[in-house]
Amino acid sequence: MATKLLSCYPWTTSPFIVAAPMRVMSGPALALAVSGAGGLGFIGPGIQTQNTHVDLEETLTLIRKQQIQPSSLNSHTSSSLLPVGVGFQLWGDDIEIATAAIQKFKPCAAWIREASPQTQIWIQIGTLKEAKQLLLISEKPDVIVVQGAESGGHGRSEDGMGIMSLFPEVADAMETSQIPLLAAGGIADGRGVSAALCLGASGVAMGSRFLASKEARISKGYQDEIVRATDGASTTKRTLLYNHLRGTFGWPAGYSPRTIINKSFVEHQGGTPFEKLKERHDEASKLGDAGWGPEGRLATYAGASVGLIHGVPAAETIVQGIRKDALQRIKSLGSVGL
Amino acid sequence: MATKLLSCYPWTTSPFIVAAPMRVMSGPALALAVSGAGGLGFIGPGIQTQNTHVDLEETLTLIRKQQIQPSSLNSHTSSSLLPVGVGFQLWGDDIEIATAAIQKFKPCAAWIREASPQTQIWIQIGTLKEAKQLLLISEKPDVIVVQGAESGGHGRSEDGMGIMSLFPEVADAMETSQIPLLAAGGIADGRGVSAALCLGASGVAMGSRFLASKEARISKGYQDEIVRATDGASTTKRTLLYNHLRGTFGWPAGYSPRTIINKSFVEHQGGTPFEKLKERHDEASKLGDAGWGPEGRLATYAGASVGLIHGVPAAETIVQGIRKDALQRIKSLGSVGL
Repeated sequence: MATKLLSCYPWTTSPFIVAAPMRVMSGPALALAVSGAGGLGFIGPGIQTQNTHVDLEETLTLIRKQQIQPSSLNSHTSSSLLPVGVGFQLWGDDIEIATAAIQKFKPCAAWIREASPQTQIWIQIGTLKEAKQLLLISEKPDVIVVQGAESGGHGRSEDGMGIMSLFPEVADAMETSQIPLLAAGGIADGRGVSAALCLGASGVAMGSRFLASKEARISKGYQDEIVRATDGASTTKRTLLYNHLRGTFGWPAGYSPRTIINKSFVEHQGGTPFEKLKERHDEASKLGDAGWGPEGRLATYAGASVGLIHGVPAAETIVQGIRKDALQRIKSLGSVGL
Repeated sequence: MATKLLSCYPWTTSPFIVAAPMRVMSGPALALAVSGAGGLGFIGPGIQTQNTHVDLEETLTLIRKQQIQPSSLNSHTSSSLLPVGVGFQLWGDDIEIATAAIQKFKPCAAWIREASPQTQIWIQIGTLKEAKQLLLISEKPDVIVVQGAESGGHGRSEDGMGIMSLFPEVADAMETSQIPLLAAGGIADGRGVSAALCLGASGVAMGSRFLASKEARISKGYQDEIVRATDGASTTKRTLLYNHLRGTFGWPAGYSPRTIINKSFVEHQGGTPFEKLKERHDEASKLGDAGWGPEGRLATYAGASVGLIHGVPAAETIVQGIRKDALQRIKSLGSVGL
């Protein structure tokens, strides 16, 4: 299955490493850098729901022009498919406009249905129930991303579970489907990638690790927090508070993002009314980078793997370093164990 | 580090597989079967806090007599160390009596301090903070078990985290200590074991997997539930409810067990008063095996890995099968990846 996946995206190298589509932060520079390093980069949903299409058109045009495309990808774009994927929120984005953009630009992968026939359809799930529902639909996705509770991006609030148990149980349920499964959530280095492969994953998707990359479209204050934070278990929480402080409502019930907590969360726990928190949040948003940090108030979405992230290298360095470490670990264990 | 560990327990084989000390359920038969298969079996704390020592004395005497000891262990018991470990709850057990038993019987490992000098001291932790505290004490443990939020046994309630993120972060913090780390929580097959080794673990401790073994001291109704339950993310919860229904109080704040939920939990969520639930629970406890199951009311402690457990083999079959699968996975990944 892992081999099948690599052949669908012929510029990729084993183990298959994906940069997840993160809203705003995953722009064309990050997506192309990851694909250029033998991974698969995704472009995240746009800056605001109402103008996703503008952002997406501009972004895909930029990539089509190949002004910033690494030369290593040139040989693979003759098929007219873009060597990056595009992420959508099915509940929030304008599907007609998104579909039009997909048809026009033909990215290699998208989290959406009814697009260009060559574009592969990826679906992310976070529970066994969601996985089983995919077995019942007639038009199967090409790739399923299994997201553990460790993840930063929006995931299951109450019935999420660590990827160590979740992934193998989903894999058993999906076995007959022959759909490649990727593991996501809590993975940020070669240890996590090699562990995911052992669990049966055909590859991994990482978010937080790429937030701390040179190419991420992210404020320095936010990025500094990703690097600074340790002890992901106690310094990150799943909460809708920061969505609401930013005016984001509408995620379906049962989903929430993981966030590095700061004063907004602490005061919320202490009983400060939302209106007061909102005022202080909006004030903090005028401070620039000082709005983040333990004394800050701004949303700092990140996964539980933040304690494994210690610097801001180029995305290419991240992909190549993690791939090398994962392969070395497996090789080294194999030589001891046998 | 893994090699160091294997040499401390010379009958063990790589990968190092431990049957965790489960209260009541881990008796001498299970512990010896696991050690006899090249793993390390632990005896759990006794039936009730007040008579732990009676149970422990009887149990260790039984093992000392070697009436039930597999012949493969005979060559390793000349050192007078028992080839099994003993688990204690430091908050609940009588430390003086426990220490006396440890000094008399010399198990190879114990979750306790100040015992026989040859007995290795194991400590289980569930957070980075707990790990860092161990770095500050003068008398370091010999082995640290890092327990992820997927675990069944009592673990961290609020600040627990999936082992995929927790383990590597703890490992980085403990690196200079040179203490072998085991991974626990959510692991029940060769996929989990090989994944844990990739994360850097020197071995794994499993609980739930051994509850569904022929040698576990467990009611059939309880064991049937472990085998029946699927979707560990939604059918198991961390809750103190069942402890309280059983009259168990006193666990330090911040710890709770994971349990397969049944009518007690559902009605608790629905607002039924505790006294009513307790009455119904006590009635159900007279029903024998029918007290467990989705319509039952009795405590069914288990980890999130229940969906990976499909039968009740001998503990030896479990240990050998999981070891073989883990090694094959790593070998097979190594041959593809390189």
